[in-house]
Amino acid sequence: MTTVFFHSDLDNPQAWKVTLQEVMPDLDFIAGPQCDRPEAVDVALVWTPPPQGLRSFPNLRAVLSLGAGVDQLQLADLDARIPVARLIDETLTQRMVEYCLTTVLFFHRHLHLHAIHQANRQWTFIPPVSASARNVLVLGLGELGSAVASSLVKLGFSVTGWSRSSKKILGINCQHGNEALALALNACDVVINLLPLTAQTAGLINRNFFAQLRPHACLVQAGRGGHLVEADLLTALDHGQLAGAFIDVFSVEPLPMSHPFWSHPLLRLTPHVASISDPNQSSKTVIENIHRAMRGEVLKHAIDRTVGY
Amino acid sequence: MTTVFFHSDLDNPQAWKVTLQEVMPDLDFIAGPQCDRPEAVDVALVWTPPPQGLRSFPNLRAVLSLGAGVDQLQLADLDARIPVARLIDETLTQRMVEYCLTTVLFFHRHLHLHAIHQANRQWTFIPPVSASARNVLVLGLGELGSAVASSLVKLGFSVTGWSRSSKKILGINCQHGNEALALALNACDVVINLLPLTAQTAGLINRNFFAQLRPHACLVQAGRGGHLVEADLLTALDHGQLAGAFIDVFSVEPLPMSHPFWSHPLLRLTPHVASISDPNQSSKTVIENIHRAMRGEVLKHAIDRTVGY
Repeated sequence: MTTVFFHSDLDNPQAWKVTLQEVMPDLDFIAGPQCDRPEAVDVALVWTPPPQGLRSFPNLRAVLSLGAGVDQLQLADLDARIPVARLIDETLTQRMVEYCLTTVLFFHRHLHLHAIHQANRQWTFIPPVSASARNVLVLGLGELGSAVASSLVKLGFSVTGWSRSSKKILGINCQHGNEALALALNACDVVINLLPLTAQTAGLINRNFFAQLRPHACLVQAGRGGHLVEADLLTALDHGQLAGAFIDVFSVEPLPMSHPFWSHPLLRLTPHVASISDPNQSSKTVIENIHRAMRGEVLKHAIDRTVGY
Repeated sequence: MTTVFFHSDLDNPQAWKVTLQEVMPDLDFIAGPQCDRPEAVDVALVWTPPPQGLRSFPNLRAVLSLGAGVDQLQLADLDARIPVARLIDETLTQRMVEYCLTTVLFFHRHLHLHAIHQANRQWTFIPPVSASARNVLVLGLGELGSAVASSLVKLGFSVTGWSRSSKKILGINCQHGNEALALALNACDVVINLLPLTAQTAGLINRNFFAQLRPHACLVQAGRGGHLVEADLLTALDHGQLAGAFIDVFSVEPLPMSHPFWSHPLLRLTPHVASISDPNQSSKTVIENIHRAMRGEVLKHAIDRTVGY
């Protein structure tokens, strides 16, 4: 008998229970946040940890994230020997690719400018620009970032990628290091954030970042709320340092009603919908990792606990 | 010596003159609307005809449209023996493909609904839908329509195409005929209009058309203004027969300031920017057709004057 503890404020426990038990009928599925048998739990399948923490399961064999990231798991509180896996599946990746294509095309085809003209009843022709004349900068070249970058190349965009360590991806101008970031920001038309949230990347999108952009550049923020210094974005928009942004993730979610982002005319907000796991699509990967955890094998998409992703 | 008469209220005559004369240095280029040597004109390169009409050129050998359509040329006034060509080039097609991808993705990823929620400061999670579960209906399967349909298939959408005559395109559910149109409208999530404007298609997007749609369906109007009964669209939106529309073409352009479209919360307007010819990209095709006209050969992308496209 394998026992899985489930906790998420975004995902539907019943849908996950049904989907997993279809393949593993004898799976013991405990839907959090409460757990009356913590010693029985073999595997934690979670978005955020439950209030009692992941340490409350004395016999835990693995933590499986319900998202592509793990920063929300508060791993500093977890025994360093317990393996942790990210959820990587085609659907998660495909949805992030779609979100980024949608928002890049939105800016590329000047829909942010046409919206302003419509509000002013102005017929203002803006000649379309060739995609090849647009430089899109993708920050983060992991599973999601590299898939997004490649899909933009397929649509004809010129794409620069930036990541912590040096990478090579066909068709992408790959860069790394702080100096290269400043140059890339200064050359891009749209910048997409898909970095993992770590101590090194927290607060990266701040006043210094915006100061490098050209005034017509736009931001797609689909990483984590902790990457962005929200007050600096508002200042940068109001000083004309960038022309608009799509924001999907926030420092506090749900975004409080009083937050100034809601009413800013140059911001488009989406409520953390860029990519979310779907049990029908993701269950195969999760089941594989439950089996691996029970056999003591290395997890699929295991993170490196020393670097945090 | 070959003489070309140019006329357009959208395209830049100087850019076309420079681009054509780079390849044909001895080309005589007359920029309309006026023409003091009508008898010298061999070829008319025009978006709309000049005020004096295309009949004013007694020795005309060909009319080359500056757009993918020819309905704006008022061909009824032109001698039926004069060959007419549409402008088909990769850039025109690519820009229309992009416009349609942009607007379909906009609706697919619920940006019209998220905009309403943002205006109301509501955090309302809407789960993304798989592209394969979306049916996009493309009306018109000519150069533009078939390229748009195929590009949507590549992004994973389920695509139905509808055209006057029966067609076969890989990966597209091709339909034709009035009965099939009603069924297709009833099954689609987004409908894109890319039909040619003819006596048969004028006013096709009317109250009967909207009555077939499901309430969440959305329209992308990138054909011609004459396809749409504008008052019927407003009524349909206000009665919840469709959820939104992108409109790029209008019965009167520029759209008058007093037009009710400007301020409708479910409409997104773009000022006829979906696709426009670029002399740098299109000149090759135009030059080829000037040579063909002078040699009396069949034009590239010649229209069938009996059906009107």
